[in-house]
Amino acid sequence: MPKATPNKVYVIKIGCNVINNKPTLEQFLSQFAAITEPKILVHGGGKLADVLSAKLGISPKMHEGRRITDEATLDVVTMVYAGLINKQIIARLQALNCNALGLSGADGNIILSQKRPATNVDYGFAGDIVKVNVTWIQQLLNSCITPVLAPITHNAAGQLLNTNADTIAAEVAKALSKKYRVELCFCFDKPGVLLDVNDANTVVHLLNEEKFLQLKRAGSIADGMLPKLTNTFATLHAGVQQVHIFQAQDLPLIIEGKRAGTLCQL
Amino acid sequence: MPKATPNKVYVIKIGCNVINNKPTLEQFLSQFAAITEPKILVHGGGKLADVLSAKLGISPKMHEGRRITDEATLDVVTMVYAGLINKQIIARLQALNCNALGLSGADGNIILSQKRPATNVDYGFAGDIVKVNVTWIQQLLNSCITPVLAPITHNAAGQLLNTNADTIAAEVAKALSKKYRVELCFCFDKPGVLLDVNDANTVVHLLNEEKFLQLKRAGSIADGMLPKLTNTFATLHAGVQQVHIFQAQDLPLIIEGKRAGTLCQL
Repeated sequence: MPKATPNKVYVIKIGCNVINNKPTLEQFLSQFAAITEPKILVHGGGKLADVLSAKLGISPKMHEGRRITDEATLDVVTMVYAGLINKQIIARLQALNCNALGLSGADGNIILSQKRPATNVDYGFAGDIVKVNVTWIQQLLNSCITPVLAPITHNAAGQLLNTNADTIAAEVAKALSKKYRVELCFCFDKPGVLLDVNDANTVVHLLNEEKFLQLKRAGSIADGMLPKLTNTFATLHAGVQQVHIFQAQDLPLIIEGKRAGTLCQL
Repeated sequence: MPKATPNKVYVIKIGCNVINNKPTLEQFLSQFAAITEPKILVHGGGKLADVLSAKLGISPKMHEGRRITDEATLDVVTMVYAGLINKQIIARLQALNCNALGLSGADGNIILSQKRPATNVDYGFAGDIVKVNVTWIQQLLNSCITPVLAPITHNAAGQLLNTNADTIAAEVAKALSKKYRVELCFCFDKPGVLLDVNDANTVVHLLNEEKFLQLKRAGSIADGMLPKLTNTFATLHAGVQQVHIFQAQDLPLIIEGKRAGTLCQL
């Protein structure tokens, strides 16, 4: 008997540029709720954690552009990411008839991580993902529940950990690709991968690994985009079917299979 | 065929006196995790919301001892209750091998409420419970997942609402009593209902409605206890089997069926 084609699942990540802008977020959530296939939302933090930290007199500690999460900062991001932002999104999705369930990694042990080992730099309470609970995600999706993941995980020893939302989206997509045809979507602040970062008309519509490596050698890809695309191709090698990089407003085009943003495939 | 006896479920509520004290909370969570029967935890807020509000310059608005939830306060309680306190409890329970799932009322639409109508007083974003999603709670309990409810609900139109944790515990217990033998447990700051509020040796060990009404008429029950007990007997009339009022440290005695605190029965 031929093996049945696995179901499709969308793993969609939104960051600051969507979360910080109320009308953009509202439009995105309407479009997200309208997706009829199983779907998972991963959200980042937005600027609110920085605003709250500043009000509380907690100065951000950074090392080469990466945040160091001390105990006070961990409390703030837990409140803002897993509390305010996550629950506001859930309430809105429920109003849009999407049965959403907000989760930190600790909830139902959905994402297990470990504290990043301190080598030259101690990043504090930063978590690197160890395991995604695929069985439980399957149960939720089978019950027509839409998981909404906040970028907070745990180490199974009682410690919450701050975890990069892009990484959560990538690791969840990779783990699910053993059971589903996974399309990983990064809602970005630009209309896709640009050949000229200052020109929105230079979107690379289709990017395979060969072309990516060519562009990388030619120095045509902006610095910030390099690690994102390196990770993208790693998820594709791990079994994710497609990765889309696009502006949030283009989500309906992506879902309809129309050309929008950058489609990355092996 | 005789009808099978329904399963027992514990609905256990903890408030400030447990949440504010780290060793007490730690001991309670160990004892809670050790309960082998299906169980649900409902937690209140603790003083942290007031501390955070004060730091942010939000002055508490009260009317006759009840909090008025303006928008800024709603954001704070959502962050503190559904974010920090809930997720810290979940991480700790996971470390104790209890597969806990933290929920606001919006998550999975588990508790639907409506904004309290403004009559003489507008309590702001305060929610009165309309419906408890019993079917989903059953599914979670059948999957050996332990729901941990934060006192934040939603109105299915996108609005989060601040809801009293005692009321959540009572309404969840009442709703579940159609399907389970429910024991509702209030962890209290005193060893039970006291005849003399200043004397811990005056615990009323067994309280039926007749005795409650007698004590009420005689003025022997402290003011703060009256609404709690009135609600308690309402839950018993609605089908809850037993209500226990006791100090958190006595939880193991309650679970073993030994005498501790006040047992309320019709």
